[in-house]
Amino acid sequence: MSADGLLSRRRFLHLVGAVGGSTAVYQAALGLGLTPQVQPMRRPDLAPLARAGSKSVVILGAGIAGLTAAYELSRKGYEVTVLEASHRVGGRNLTVRGGDLVDEIGQPQICRFDRDPDLYFNAGPARIPGHHASLLSYCREFGVQLAPFVNDNRNAWVQDDSMLGGQRIRNREYMADARGFMAELMAKSLKAEQLDRPFTATDHGRLLEFLRQFGELDPQFRYRSATRAGLVSYDYTQPEPHRTPIDFKELLQSRFMYLMSFGEADDQAAMMMEPVGGMDRIVAGFMSKISSLVQTRAIVQSVRLQENGVEIVYARNDSKRTIHADFCLNSIPTQLLAGLEHNFPADYSGCFSAIPRGKLFKIGLQARERFWEREGIYGGISWTMQDILQIWYPAHGIHRDKGILLGAYTFDDASGDRFARLTHAQRVELALQQGEKVHPGYREHIENGISICWHRMNHMLGCSAQWDESLQSQWFKRAQAPIGNHYLIGDQVSYHPGWQEGAIHSAFHAISDIDRRVRGMATVVAA
Amino acid sequence: MSADGLLSRRRFLHLVGAVGGSTAVYQAALGLGLTPQVQPMRRPDLAPLARAGSKSVVILGAGIAGLTAAYELSRKGYEVTVLEASHRVGGRNLTVRGGDLVDEIGQPQICRFDRDPDLYFNAGPARIPGHHASLLSYCREFGVQLAPFVNDNRNAWVQDDSMLGGQRIRNREYMADARGFMAELMAKSLKAEQLDRPFTATDHGRLLEFLRQFGELDPQFRYRSATRAGLVSYDYTQPEPHRTPIDFKELLQSRFMYLMSFGEADDQAAMMMEPVGGMDRIVAGFMSKISSLVQTRAIVQSVRLQENGVEIVYARNDSKRTIHADFCLNSIPTQLLAGLEHNFPADYSGCFSAIPRGKLFKIGLQARERFWEREGIYGGISWTMQDILQIWYPAHGIHRDKGILLGAYTFDDASGDRFARLTHAQRVELALQQGEKVHPGYREHIENGISICWHRMNHMLGCSAQWDESLQSQWFKRAQAPIGNHYLIGDQVSYHPGWQEGAIHSAFHAISDIDRRVRGMATVVAA
Repeated sequence: MSADGLLSRRRFLHLVGAVGGSTAVYQAALGLGLTPQVQPMRRPDLAPLARAGSKSVVILGAGIAGLTAAYELSRKGYEVTVLEASHRVGGRNLTVRGGDLVDEIGQPQICRFDRDPDLYFNAGPARIPGHHASLLSYCREFGVQLAPFVNDNRNAWVQDDSMLGGQRIRNREYMADARGFMAELMAKSLKAEQLDRPFTATDHGRLLEFLRQFGELDPQFRYRSATRAGLVSYDYTQPEPHRTPIDFKELLQSRFMYLMSFGEADDQAAMMMEPVGGMDRIVAGFMSKISSLVQTRAIVQSVRLQENGVEIVYARNDSKRTIHADFCLNSIPTQLLAGLEHNFPADYSGCFSAIPRGKLFKIGLQARERFWEREGIYGGISWTMQDILQIWYPAHGIHRDKGILLGAYTFDDASGDRFARLTHAQRVELALQQGEKVHPGYREHIENGISICWHRMNHMLGCSAQWDESLQSQWFKRAQAPIGNHYLIGDQVSYHPGWQEGAIHSAFHAISDIDRRVRGMATVVAA
Repeated sequence: MSADGLLSRRRFLHLVGAVGGSTAVYQAALGLGLTPQVQPMRRPDLAPLARAGSKSVVILGAGIAGLTAAYELSRKGYEVTVLEASHRVGGRNLTVRGGDLVDEIGQPQICRFDRDPDLYFNAGPARIPGHHASLLSYCREFGVQLAPFVNDNRNAWVQDDSMLGGQRIRNREYMADARGFMAELMAKSLKAEQLDRPFTATDHGRLLEFLRQFGELDPQFRYRSATRAGLVSYDYTQPEPHRTPIDFKELLQSRFMYLMSFGEADDQAAMMMEPVGGMDRIVAGFMSKISSLVQTRAIVQSVRLQENGVEIVYARNDSKRTIHADFCLNSIPTQLLAGLEHNFPADYSGCFSAIPRGKLFKIGLQARERFWEREGIYGGISWTMQDILQIWYPAHGIHRDKGILLGAYTFDDASGDRFARLTHAQRVELALQQGEKVHPGYREHIENGISICWHRMNHMLGCSAQWDESLQSQWFKRAQAPIGNHYLIGDQVSYHPGWQEGAIHSAFHAISDIDRRVRGMATVVAA
């Protein structure tokens, strides 16, 4: 291939990208026989306004989407106002520390953690994968220090009442024995003659070798005992004694099989990261640039489309105020937006109440001593088939006296509803009872706790939007497109709800479109 | 079971432990039908000497074993002298920073890294698993700050000339596609009637479900494309387009299969840790307690057993000195010990030259920019089937300007010898050439490099002892037992050579025995 040939293909791909985005580039590259490199979405490079302040934007909600839009637009000369209903900024990016108000409707709480740099709890997003490039670019720009975050910890516990009579085992035992037995069975049943062409006898040998490695099988492809499952004692002055594998029939009783692939997921597989000092260091980064633009406790009452802009009425400090702006970027959760005064047509506002919201629930527990470290656990997650589902251990503040555990993290609606019906004290009590199966003596280590029930939180009443394919085909493009000069933003109008990266991309999408329109071009977003 | 029954079993286990160690406890517990809890080796609680300084110990070598013994004995009143041949303490616990001498025989180097807290390179041990409880107890005691260390990073690269024409792919593509295709094949070949009893039809269904989860198969147990393998673009304003899996025949060509289970190993599986600021923070912790006891550049010339002690002759500052001590703990690498004057009987000294040593090799490279972070890589390891084998990315100092890469890490003798025959400049050049296949443009990012060839390092001439079962049965007990008042220590006389935990346990073993003898009991260690 000549250099010219390469150049013209690249130029072609560049043109494709300008029109169709990165997915189109990828698919065009495949069509050209080139090796496509995955490119993350680029941060938009907006044109600065010719006259600073000549365009105004009102942004509803100071979560990650709103903060992103406010930062990007304001530094290009837009006049930006951010209205946030809550007493705090950040939205679901919420790090709870001692003294903080957790504003649950009906039962607000004050967190009783000790005041200490390591004693906090990320009640919303808590981890960042390496391919969330937009979010990471802000971390870099704002100097938010990052450290590795651990999901999988083979030293952590697995506990399921339907397996081994409910006895906890180490994650490494579960994983190594389950994989070992599976590999042995598969090696037995995988006959060379069963393999369809194009597989050859050589391939069959390679597959068997793969199974041997995968399951740590012996030379006869039998699973006897894996060193990966851990030693029976960690005394290196003695030869390693033989460990007895767990009965495979017992392992098959467990209901963890899907959870055991959790750490393989695109957005959960190592390496994950977390900001040092709490996820809200990212919010603080944005605020260091634009705090003067943000009004908290500003509760929107109506949103009205106008000929060449948007009018917002909101209440603040017991007074009603009206603001007109050329554009409005609106991250109010759609289920709350449905109850506001507005003049949206029904084929737009219909989506507000159509999209269900998640009911995620978390509990933070302050431990008076880091007892898990004595068990060889320095981070990661223990799994239990009880309501609490997970216990997370902090990977920061190692070997300090105290630490904050995540004492429960549930995603399914049933568990969310179950916890929602309890008082805070009852929720913590349930977490202590259930945690006892994972850590005998658990209760004695815990000093206090705080719960976050996202579908009862003030100004939220729900966690991330729960799109399915049918809802997407019915509503997504309509929700994503502007109506007049009004744009819905937030992770709720991304294909990645529940992640800050989705929120940021939604903001990029809207501000790029505003940029084009301000420069006299048509919106490229069709509903 | 009555409480009494439990109690007496526990008491029995306690007695077993006192005599036979933790392995005996584990096996006795199994025999009793109890669930054994794995217990790490306990740090010995030595009896303080009735009269401080009444017993003297000379310790040869200030590596982790020697430092451990010196610390534990000196705080119980023993008079301790540590003789270290090198200009520095720590042994193979070596963190290299700008300005440091790397004392390779024939070609000493000075490291040219910039002086900066994040610009260092752990040339020896670089990671600590959570079950290395002894080492971790010293980290806790000395206030050595720990952070997570990442081995597996699904965003890192896999490159093998025998696969895909040498094109790099993401670790997540390799893992997800290989597992997906394997799971599909296995689901096809796993017929219910093939399963021996006691497996039932229900079990067969569970196995299939395990395979579905394991391989991310579709409802018909076919592997089409796993989201775990990554998206074709990370633009969350667009629906996720379909990714095309890599041809399984190509994956089967790869020689990585065994390496792809690397992150499952007992001592490598997540969660791993590293000291903040370099592994030698642990050495500094010991030295903060006992630096006055240590003489560097003290080169031992002879070791002689005496009636009630040991006599050491050593050279320091151009003079020859003699020291007598009641006990000697000797961590001099056995292959060097073989060349010293001594009066050991042949059935003891025979092991000195019998145990081969590893030829591990590492290169540290200073990058002028952290280009890997632009590729979504923030730590972990890329694998290549070239001499360099691995490229490691630092998980500390994220988003800073510069960083230190591990540009090569080889374990096998052939690779070690290949690098050993090159000058430093040639080694770095080879690493740059080969790294180019993993990171196009690699060379342009690298400012300088430094290589550590453990089998050419002064006062070392080898890395960890390479025991096999035959050597163990012939020599291990003999090497571990005292001869007169002389003990071999170091990871070289542990069942876990190459790890600091093995070194520490060897020290615990020897000092516990000295403690027993000083208290008038017989040695419990039989050769």
